[in-house]
Amino acid sequence: MELFDALHGRRAIRQFIAGEVDDDTLRRILAAGMSAPSAGNEQPWHFIVIHNRATLAALSAAHPYAEMVQHAACAILVCVDLKLVKHLDYWPADCAAATQNILLAVHGLGLGSVWVGIYPRDTRLQEVRKVMTLPEHIIPFSLLPIGIPGEKKPPEDRFRSERVHEDRW
Amino acid sequence: MELFDALHGRRAIRQFIAGEVDDDTLRRILAAGMSAPSAGNEQPWHFIVIHNRATLAALSAAHPYAEMVQHAACAILVCVDLKLVKHLDYWPADCAAATQNILLAVHGLGLGSVWVGIYPRDTRLQEVRKVMTLPEHIIPFSLLPIGIPGEKKPPEDRFRSERVHEDRW
Repeated sequence: MELFDALHGRRAIRQFIAGEVDDDTLRRILAAGMSAPSAGNEQPWHFIVIHNRATLAALSAAHPYAEMVQHAACAILVCVDLKLVKHLDYWPADCAAATQNILLAVHGLGLGSVWVGIYPRDTRLQEVRKVMTLPEHIIPFSLLPIGIPGEKKPPEDRFRSERVHEDRW
Repeated sequence: MELFDALHGRRAIRQFIAGEVDDDTLRRILAAGMSAPSAGNEQPWHFIVIHNRATLAALSAAHPYAEMVQHAACAILVCVDLKLVKHLDYWPADCAAATQNILLAVHGLGLGSVWVGIYPRDTRLQEVRKVMTLPEHIIPFSLLPIGIPGEKKPPEDRFRSERVHEDRW
């Protein structure tokens, strides 16, 4: 898929139909995430790929906006490993860039996903941590259900000239 | 450019050669930024496009890792408008996704850029805010110099299988 078609065509997909995501496709999606920029190229991320139906259902129940996760073929939980972080304040931006790369790759491969935000909301962090039994130094950042799209959304033109300023505020 | 070539070929470009970035190209880059996902689709961002050489030089001086900014054709300062934010905790992720889309678009158009992090470091925020005379509700998130690449970097394979986990940590 052409880059700009991917940038403008990627939309939040919350409905999925039955169908698996094969390992090679998942590897391409994960490699896209790991190609993201990070502060000082620290690459502090880990990715938990979840296929287990009981775990997907538990994640759906653990988050107020994650109902669709149980219907996806799988999900990727993007996490940071605080032991890998050299530039402490910037790891959420690193994980956000990796998340965005994954969403673009998913769309580019004909699949669908949606960014389910976890960090920095305390309740969401605790609930997801509990389901996944994460150690203290692993913080879940975002949850990305992935599957065959069960809804079609056209590209949306979000350009707003009033958000662009020349040289000064 | 093909999406995966863009995802893997985007690298931090810190050297620029002389040459302008035309308005149509800048519009495409900004539209890519505005196509990013955001919490509740709040799109809380503003973009200040800086061509003024004195301002670019002042920004270079205001940040410890922004020396290259003064040599770029222009720069985009990605900001949040706190008055537009509906999901308070998530705006840094929104701005990071917009930043990543911009970096990909820049690369896809044959130009170069690098993510200069500002938020949440206090000193950087204060210094950039001072140069740009931003009002209180406008927070600078990232600074992206854009120009004709003066260095060539090949795609880098950052895939690490040890960062991928199946179903559990």
